[in-house]
Amino acid sequence: MSGAFWSPGLGQLEPYTPGEQPDSGTCIKLNTNENPYPPSPRALALLTSGDFANALRRYPDPESCQLRTAIAHRYGLKPAQVFVGNGSDEVLALSFYSFFRRPEPLLFADITYSFYPVYCQLFGITNRAAPLKEDFTIEVRDFAGRAGGVIIPNPNAPTGCYLSLENIEALLQLQPNRVVIIDEAYIDFGGESAISLINRYPNLLVIHTLSKSYALAGLRLGFAMGQEPLIQGLLRAKNSFNPYPIDAIAQQVATAAIGDKAWHADNCGKVIATRKRSERALQALGFTVIPSRANFILAKPPAPGAEALYLALRKRDILVRYFDQPRIRDYLRISIGTDVEMDQLIGNCKEILASQS
Amino acid sequence: MSGAFWSPGLGQLEPYTPGEQPDSGTCIKLNTNENPYPPSPRALALLTSGDFANALRRYPDPESCQLRTAIAHRYGLKPAQVFVGNGSDEVLALSFYSFFRRPEPLLFADITYSFYPVYCQLFGITNRAAPLKEDFTIEVRDFAGRAGGVIIPNPNAPTGCYLSLENIEALLQLQPNRVVIIDEAYIDFGGESAISLINRYPNLLVIHTLSKSYALAGLRLGFAMGQEPLIQGLLRAKNSFNPYPIDAIAQQVATAAIGDKAWHADNCGKVIATRKRSERALQALGFTVIPSRANFILAKPPAPGAEALYLALRKRDILVRYFDQPRIRDYLRISIGTDVEMDQLIGNCKEILASQS
Repeated sequence: MSGAFWSPGLGQLEPYTPGEQPDSGTCIKLNTNENPYPPSPRALALLTSGDFANALRRYPDPESCQLRTAIAHRYGLKPAQVFVGNGSDEVLALSFYSFFRRPEPLLFADITYSFYPVYCQLFGITNRAAPLKEDFTIEVRDFAGRAGGVIIPNPNAPTGCYLSLENIEALLQLQPNRVVIIDEAYIDFGGESAISLINRYPNLLVIHTLSKSYALAGLRLGFAMGQEPLIQGLLRAKNSFNPYPIDAIAQQVATAAIGDKAWHADNCGKVIATRKRSERALQALGFTVIPSRANFILAKPPAPGAEALYLALRKRDILVRYFDQPRIRDYLRISIGTDVEMDQLIGNCKEILASQS
Repeated sequence: MSGAFWSPGLGQLEPYTPGEQPDSGTCIKLNTNENPYPPSPRALALLTSGDFANALRRYPDPESCQLRTAIAHRYGLKPAQVFVGNGSDEVLALSFYSFFRRPEPLLFADITYSFYPVYCQLFGITNRAAPLKEDFTIEVRDFAGRAGGVIIPNPNAPTGCYLSLENIEALLQLQPNRVVIIDEAYIDFGGESAISLINRYPNLLVIHTLSKSYALAGLRLGFAMGQEPLIQGLLRAKNSFNPYPIDAIAQQVATAAIGDKAWHADNCGKVIATRKRSERALQALGFTVIPSRANFILAKPPAPGAEALYLALRKRDILVRYFDQPRIRDYLRISIGTDVEMDQLIGNCKEILASQS
């Protein structure tokens, strides 16, 4: 579809394709890396007990001060080192605008979050893909040289591979004059955050989300952390785009969730335990499993292969993610559900594989 | 402030300046055109009665189908003719990106919503200001000729002046090959919406918000209505920027609010009655009042003048808006509060003016 009224170039954009969000609640949904457990009861209690009449009538705090203070407190930073947005997708979009519109190409891995090239199209940013190694891990030295910036998810998506903090530091030193974004959407499931490097590296921006380890994908809350000049840059873009992106309810619910450290640690522990258990079960079925530090597993099923298994599971109302793209089209990405959900996945995989052999 | 790490040009952006949002609840706040009454009780009831655990855990519907259907039903359109965003500011930003990035200049009035030139800077859009007439009304023929598009608020902000539907239609006919946006944030307070023209004009995009007449500024919900190719253009931009802008709670609260027609009609009636009463009271004090169809009044106070009165009211914890800019720096923009709030404003103005004469 194209439009005579569209700005030139709009028809050439290839928008991001999110995983399916089926209406029906009957399926086992392991396709979008959602958390299988309900969010912190503290966050939920706010909704039923809160009096939002006045908060909804008025504009929300455009600076989200209370929330930024809670995040800063949680991660040992100053509020002025925290930027919040309407989901980490918005934070990423504003970061691309603020830091990566440069003559030199932005660098990212050939297999990574598929939204990055979309932002490049949106803002006319050139980019160059650095190929992952054969085992899907990152080759840090490929991110050297002339560049407009670097962005990597850690752990990477959709591989789940983790890059150590020493390697992140090496990456920051390779590009001292450019912003390096570490997109840590999945870091809480077993990795070490680069937040500890922020006060030493003015070029480091770390991005988090409440969608995964806080079980709040429905709330749309992401945040960036970095030294003040980077946060100030993001604020300029945000205040020129949409000055009030976080609604009054979301500010309060997110603040409560961030403060519930005990719930968060417990939740991450459960997901990690189920991931380890699921990895072993898939290996027992003949899958090749890429070692994951995220709340999902990238794994290569035995014959009849990834696409056939994806379709067969779909018929049984089990959704996983299949990417028809180079290097990973023999793999499935499986989000970590509850133990019960994973048992059903494994049981169904076993039946399907047995019936095909 | 500037940053070595910023994209070139970021330091030259001059972000939008919203009206003050003071922490304290003790002041009389007539500075940001908020509704003085709480939102629909149906919308509020949802929050306390709803079970949001599952809705928050999962990603929200990226298409906001239920909400778009409710809006379409309310205004006699198809859901495919409705686009929703995180406040009308986001809808406007995506509209500028989708339709106005053209070689020809975008046209808007010299006195209008001050965010328009900011979006132009953000996306590198050239623009030309069409001067309002002496009485602050729009001269439609000034919007003819070579243009990348046209945008006008109706009623205009911060003047409150209303343009008749015949004039809107004339404007649409002047620019048949360009998108004409009618930003109807304030239309429910006494104007006739251009929604009725949508099926006849493929170049018409009408933008509404829940922030004013629905008393939901804290919810961040705006929407655009137009023929499908325009909506498809907006979706391409949105899905390349942030595919899930409306959180799960906001989708439900907004759907309930849009469905409560009786509350909406009653609320608008009350605000209009208070506006008429306030206009008369201000005139009695010697103000020159610009005829308003919005939930605010632009009025020129007698000596000691706008800035002095603004500062004196501020000392008494009454906030109104003063714009230190050409043509309107002798005026104050006063949002319509409750009758009690307006009586306090008028009483305080009377005292201040008496003490200065």
